[in-house]
Amino acid sequence: MSVVTLSTDFGWDDPYVGIMKGVILGINPKVRLVDITHALSHHHLLEAAFVLQSAYAYFPERAIHLAVVDPGVGGGRRLLGIQGRNCAWVGPDNGLFTLVLTNQPGAEIVHLTNPQFFLPNPSNTFHGRDILAPIAARLSLGIPLEEMGPLIADPVLLPVPELEVKDKALIGQVLWADHFGNLMTNIDQKTLSTLFPVASFKINIGSETITAIHQHYSQGPPGHLMALIGSSGYLEIACNLGRAAETVGFESGMVLKVEVVQP
Amino acid sequence: MSVVTLSTDFGWDDPYVGIMKGVILGINPKVRLVDITHALSHHHLLEAAFVLQSAYAYFPERAIHLAVVDPGVGGGRRLLGIQGRNCAWVGPDNGLFTLVLTNQPGAEIVHLTNPQFFLPNPSNTFHGRDILAPIAARLSLGIPLEEMGPLIADPVLLPVPELEVKDKALIGQVLWADHFGNLMTNIDQKTLSTLFPVASFKINIGSETITAIHQHYSQGPPGHLMALIGSSGYLEIACNLGRAAETVGFESGMVLKVEVVQP
Amino acid sequence: MSVVTLSTDFGWDDPYVGIMKGVILGINPKVRLVDITHALSHHHLLEAAFVLQSAYAYFPERAIHLAVVDPGVGGGRRLLGIQGRNCAWVGPDNGLFTLVLTNQPGAEIVHLTNPQFFLPNPSNTFHGRDILAPIAARLSLGIPLEEMGPLIADPVLLPVPELEVKDKALIGQVLWADHFGNLMTNIDQKTLSTLFPVASFKINIGSETITAIHQHYSQGPPGHLMALIGSSGYLEIACNLGRAAETVGFESGMVLKVEVVQP
Repeated sequence: MSVVTLSTDFGWDDPYVGIMKGVILGINPKVRLVDITHALSHHHLLEAAFVLQSAYAYFPERAIHLAVVDPGVGGGRRLLGIQGRNCAWVGPDNGLFTLVLTNQPGAEIVHLTNPQFFLPNPSNTFHGRDILAPIAARLSLGIPLEEMGPLIADPVLLPVPELEVKDKALIGQVLWADHFGNLMTNIDQKTLSTLFPVASFKINIGSETITAIHQHYSQGPPGHLMALIGSSGYLEIACNLGRAAETVGFESGMVLKVEVVQP
Repeated sequence: MSVVTLSTDFGWDDPYVGIMKGVILGINPKVRLVDITHALSHHHLLEAAFVLQSAYAYFPERAIHLAVVDPGVGGGRRLLGIQGRNCAWVGPDNGLFTLVLTNQPGAEIVHLTNPQFFLPNPSNTFHGRDILAPIAARLSLGIPLEEMGPLIADPVLLPVPELEVKDKALIGQVLWADHFGNLMTNIDQKTLSTLFPVASFKINIGSETITAIHQHYSQGPPGHLMALIGSSGYLEIACNLGRAAETVGFESGMVLKVEVVQP
Repeated sequence: MSVVTLSTDFGWDDPYVGIMKGVILGINPKVRLVDITHALSHHHLLEAAFVLQSAYAYFPERAIHLAVVDPGVGGGRRLLGIQGRNCAWVGPDNGLFTLVLTNQPGAEIVHLTNPQFFLPNPSNTFHGRDILAPIAARLSLGIPLEEMGPLIADPVLLPVPELEVKDKALIGQVLWADHFGNLMTNIDQKTLSTLFPVASFKINIGSETITAIHQHYSQGPPGHLMALIGSSGYLEIACNLGRAAETVGFESGMVLKVEVVQP
């Protein structure tokens, strides 16, 4: 029994996600379908790329991850199938898989061109239904990705914000905010602990300064900003019983700066 | 393994959809459950009817489609089971199945009256849980619809807006808007191509005039209205990187007019 | 085939629910997953407790109900497994199970401490993924709850509002409002019918007085408040084609008073 996950920007209100599931079950009635999110950002593909990257490791081996944020549907952009170490992805070639590909060097990337695996007469506006859903279903049946089109080596990759060390300060970015208002950054625990002794740093973000570094949310005084290492191993800005995103005026790509506290 | 789909106006926040699924799995533990939408319009049953009609063809044969928009629950309105060519529907007799029945001439329609297929002691306010869920589950087990009540021939049918041709103009309506703000109309590709040579027409909607007829969304200049044939084969009004619904001031049943461009 | 349900305050926009499902399917690929709600109240645990209690009876025997509203994650609060008569629960020991435990006297309660059933290296901030999901999956495989930690007898129980009878009036509370704006109270049908002859009472809530007691929603005049016995057997305040929650200015714990109509 294999798993197909769905991650899109389709929202929950329209019938589009259900329709894709109908197509998949028509091809592989035994597949297990799991929604990861249907609120991927239309506008910030890098945020969507981080969400995709944060989730896949928790799924069973051989899972197939279908992802759609596809403003270029029907135009020249390619559709890709990606065979990673223990799982596969299908979706548009617009940078959505930037982080996944960074984490999976050596992944095989196929341009999905073989119409025998599509629905007949695919539309120009809903490739999720007409191409990606049937491809995902057929991958879940064990049909090899190589039969679905030619290998490529030049997938679209978005520029990824790199950590910067400057004057003993570490400069990172907020990648996305979750619905609790917690801010997920690109500062990983290892870099942080290498550069700074335990809890001896402060964080500047927007016009706020955070000196409270905690283990878990409820250690923070209610309503005040705090920092902790989140469940993905990255620095997270949160607010016990409040919403950090509103407090700092979150915008996509917002910068944060970590520096040693002068005693 | 059979599929039961769920389409309701229950939203996602309350436990009602999950409860219906629990009832279904208690009767048929092997059924596959797929949510189509839980945002069917309370107020515009015809919109809900169009959504139901747009989705069913993509599901496997013998799928059972449970649909609930039911302000008349517990009153005199009937509950129906409908056996179509390759699938079945269950839901209230209030016009929700108007389009489905138009597309399925000869479908068998049963008034669901046989309490042996209901939960014991059904409530007056949640027939989705107490009657429709157990009926759908039992249909998925292969129990024939005819055992569930008498055949009827007079289901409630809502008036459906007809296309009108007047002074060489084609007059249609917007049926619903999806969460991208794209407007779905009742003007089908065939009628359009019969009446108008390729891309030689303009469209009036609200106070806007659209002359850009494209193949796919990304061909439109960002932020401008455009028209295309959507994934269901009907004329759709969209806006590349924007929201057509807001631009035209969408209201349910809004009229649009297609006419030849005078050179 | 067993069922695991999920009820959280995680919302639908983040990948957290999907990630928990991935963990569960990795341990028990055959389990059936059903979402009850992901909109449990962060702030009103008693509301969340009532929602949990309203749903479980509709699921098949041996269902496992995973529930997470967990502001104290990573701190000192315990995680519990509860073995009831026909089903089990897992979640934090913060009162979320108050109503369930009231309804299941004699349920076995275990403090989940045995790390062999957790994911390796659990985080401090996402016990839903790292502890509760794997525990639920293992319970669904038939591993006995007793192996997962010591029995306890002192779960956190929230104060539950009791019905009060005073000067021939019955005083109750609104427990939660659903997305239709219907108000669910703690006044049960039996108490009501014992104290008051049929439809001879009036209800005061906020500054409103309701004298219309009906069988179902559509009996109420459009836009006016009405009362009925809801699908769980409790007094419900509703508004045909309107929203009672807005009309009465709903707040959590709002009081309502039922008294005999003086002829």
